[in-house]
Amino acid sequence: MQRVELVKDSLSFSRMIQGYWRLNDWEMSAQQLVSFIEQGLELGITTTDHADVYGAFTEERRFGQALKLAPHLRDKIEIISKCGILFPCEEQPRVIEKHYDTRRDYIIRAAERSLHELGIERLDVLLIHRPDPLMDADEVAEAFRCLKQAGKVRHFGVSNFSTSQFALLQSRVDEPLVTNQLEISVVHPDYLFDGTLDYLQQHRIRPMAWSCLGGGEVFHDYQYKDLRVRAAEIGEQMGASLDQVLLAFVLALPCQAMPLLGSGNLDRIRTQVGALDLKFDRQQWFSLLEVARGQAVP
Amino acid sequence: MQRVELVKDSLSFSRMIQGYWRLNDWEMSAQQLVSFIEQGLELGITTTDHADVYGAFTEERRFGQALKLAPHLRDKIEIISKCGILFPCEEQPRVIEKHYDTRRDYIIRAAERSLHELGIERLDVLLIHRPDPLMDADEVAEAFRCLKQAGKVRHFGVSNFSTSQFALLQSRVDEPLVTNQLEISVVHPDYLFDGTLDYLQQHRIRPMAWSCLGGGEVFHDYQYKDLRVRAAEIGEQMGASLDQVLLAFVLALPCQAMPLLGSGNLDRIRTQVGALDLKFDRQQWFSLLEVARGQAVP
Amino acid sequence: MQRVELVKDSLSFSRMIQGYWRLNDWEMSAQQLVSFIEQGLELGITTTDHADVYGAFTEERRFGQALKLAPHLRDKIEIISKCGILFPCEEQPRVIEKHYDTRRDYIIRAAERSLHELGIERLDVLLIHRPDPLMDADEVAEAFRCLKQAGKVRHFGVSNFSTSQFALLQSRVDEPLVTNQLEISVVHPDYLFDGTLDYLQQHRIRPMAWSCLGGGEVFHDYQYKDLRVRAAEIGEQMGASLDQVLLAFVLALPCQAMPLLGSGNLDRIRTQVGALDLKFDRQQWFSLLEVARGQAVP
Repeated sequence: MQRVELVKDSLSFSRMIQGYWRLNDWEMSAQQLVSFIEQGLELGITTTDHADVYGAFTEERRFGQALKLAPHLRDKIEIISKCGILFPCEEQPRVIEKHYDTRRDYIIRAAERSLHELGIERLDVLLIHRPDPLMDADEVAEAFRCLKQAGKVRHFGVSNFSTSQFALLQSRVDEPLVTNQLEISVVHPDYLFDGTLDYLQQHRIRPMAWSCLGGGEVFHDYQYKDLRVRAAEIGEQMGASLDQVLLAFVLALPCQAMPLLGSGNLDRIRTQVGALDLKFDRQQWFSLLEVARGQAVP
Repeated sequence: MQRVELVKDSLSFSRMIQGYWRLNDWEMSAQQLVSFIEQGLELGITTTDHADVYGAFTEERRFGQALKLAPHLRDKIEIISKCGILFPCEEQPRVIEKHYDTRRDYIIRAAERSLHELGIERLDVLLIHRPDPLMDADEVAEAFRCLKQAGKVRHFGVSNFSTSQFALLQSRVDEPLVTNQLEISVVHPDYLFDGTLDYLQQHRIRPMAWSCLGGGEVFHDYQYKDLRVRAAEIGEQMGASLDQVLLAFVLALPCQAMPLLGSGNLDRIRTQVGALDLKFDRQQWFSLLEVARGQAVP
Repeated sequence: MQRVELVKDSLSFSRMIQGYWRLNDWEMSAQQLVSFIEQGLELGITTTDHADVYGAFTEERRFGQALKLAPHLRDKIEIISKCGILFPCEEQPRVIEKHYDTRRDYIIRAAERSLHELGIERLDVLLIHRPDPLMDADEVAEAFRCLKQAGKVRHFGVSNFSTSQFALLQSRVDEPLVTNQLEISVVHPDYLFDGTLDYLQQHRIRPMAWSCLGGGEVFHDYQYKDLRVRAAEIGEQMGASLDQVLLAFVLALPCQAMPLLGSGNLDRIRTQVGALDLKFDRQQWFSLLEVARGQAVP
């Protein structure tokens, strides 16, 4: 598995990253999860993606139970978490409206809560989960400084940020934001054309890519019928599955995105990792984009 | 009343600014206007916003008549004017089409005309009223230089400018543009999401906010029914009027906007100033935004 | 004819540029083309615009045949070419899908092919024809470096690039990109308002303007009826033809665009060059824009 150096001599990720947003749905025991993590490691997947909000604020606790069973795993993996989204749920009894919070104290408390739930000393990376129209960039920078100094978080980044939001926050934070986690797929190619990926390539910031498979809708929605047919043709030419074609489409981008894998099924993950060996021909790539957008490039 | 320092040791505004675009409709005598300004000063509102074009090029003359009656007021207030818009009206007999003009000579003449109408020696701030697709930024910068050197204008800014227009003009003007006057309200929240306010926060430029109350339509238009209901609920929780809720929504933004008050009714102004003491809870703020946009944040 | 210095002491264009994208339709013999180029030179038009892809990859060969007949013309003209677009046609038998290619080796090969077809030693300017979502800016920069060092291309630029794409590529290329060739006309005024021309003015980069006449549709399409009427009124006031009014509209922009002329008819070209002597009144300019957009400026 290819490794990606995000901060020289300080932070590297596996090119593919295991996402845990659906962990609760997998119905694994802590022991099964330990085994799942270990088998991922055998495939070279060392980087794991979490968020306080996943599983309605319960995912990190569940992941922490596995780490408790197998503490040696901690130093073999990178742990990313996110904060900033709040919505009404059992774990947040005082929340009655979905909203964001990026105030200094809230970020610090949220990171500490993630550490507690995961049962670890330090996050490798903390991301602001969503751009917050009320974000005071000085407060966020101050929270990052505190968490860094306290040894609680090693590096910082963002998720779903536009170029202007990224530039604003970066202007206040001393060290480079290490990533911007974005929805990137052939069915959501907006960032390829609106400047977001141009900016990241310019500043050599590697995005993480979520929903590379289009959230599953590509597999059954009627509106994606033509896309499925074209992807299947390409898959046949390449000797690749639909999963692999969709992932290889994202891997081909010059921003060198790091795809998140959302499945809890190791067979499927093994197949998906195979996308790293595929090589999209440019004509294939543009023809898939054309079908997805309903028009050729000009 | 909170004061905002826009240029260190050289320019500060009251957090709330009295706008005079509807001055003619108020039907005040010069003496009544003197009294109005004085009562505003008692509330701490020292900053006044004008434009050559207000009242079809007659507003500044009317304001100047009050200053003539009470010349001691000049040094107690900040006077902002704007230029660049032209449209057919009695005062502009040679204009037959609405258009913009941002040529060097026009800007200088327009500023001199405003000084003449207001009966003052110097504007505190001159803004370019609208972004002009024919704007030659070198010419505008040259006009600003001339007006500054002649002692006719102390500082410069813009109004309704996008990020790229602001960056273009700033690249040519020697000193920092002090503000960008923008339409900002819960019913026109575009600038919260399109990068305009991100850019201003990044460069620590404080916008002035016009039409914070949504141009009055929020108060009676059917399409804003749900918004009125939600704002009323929040107002009840806060002990605040609809005016105050709408103003507090804008005041909560991290760009630290300075709202323009457009009313000529001192009771209403007094109430509006009360918005400065309100504190929006994040859940309330996001719920108001949600109703206004018809969707929750993602 | 006004000349425009793009790179100090190294590159200048005639303000109007002869475009050859329709050369094949003109059905000129090589000798007729020689005469056409010479008569253009008499009008001061020294700059010629080509692309590998024009005439389905045959236009440059045809132009090269004229240069072969009259080799003395080479040093009297500037030759611009472009690469990066591929589509299925007789000259590209291995292409089955329209796509872009901006890889290092492809750019070098394409430029060499253009040199071969044109029968010349060196291009004055090479442009990347379209922004490519797969563009690795480091590879493009490397291709530019190789072509420069080999003496095959003197300067580089782009075409149809957004601001973020331009900034990305410029960040990797050592010397300034000399132009961005864009569609600019009263019926396609998007770049006047979306920041693209603001950015170019800010960085003092002169765009080339294609389809200033709106691709011919302005002359007969029903949807442009009102625009034709308004342009005719303005033409009457100015003593100018429709061609001239449409070109003068673009020439009036502060970005100082260099219009491409697409006609092969010398009488028409002579008329079009006359647009350089016209002076649009601002009221006329805004009224034409208003009719084209269906709304006045705010």
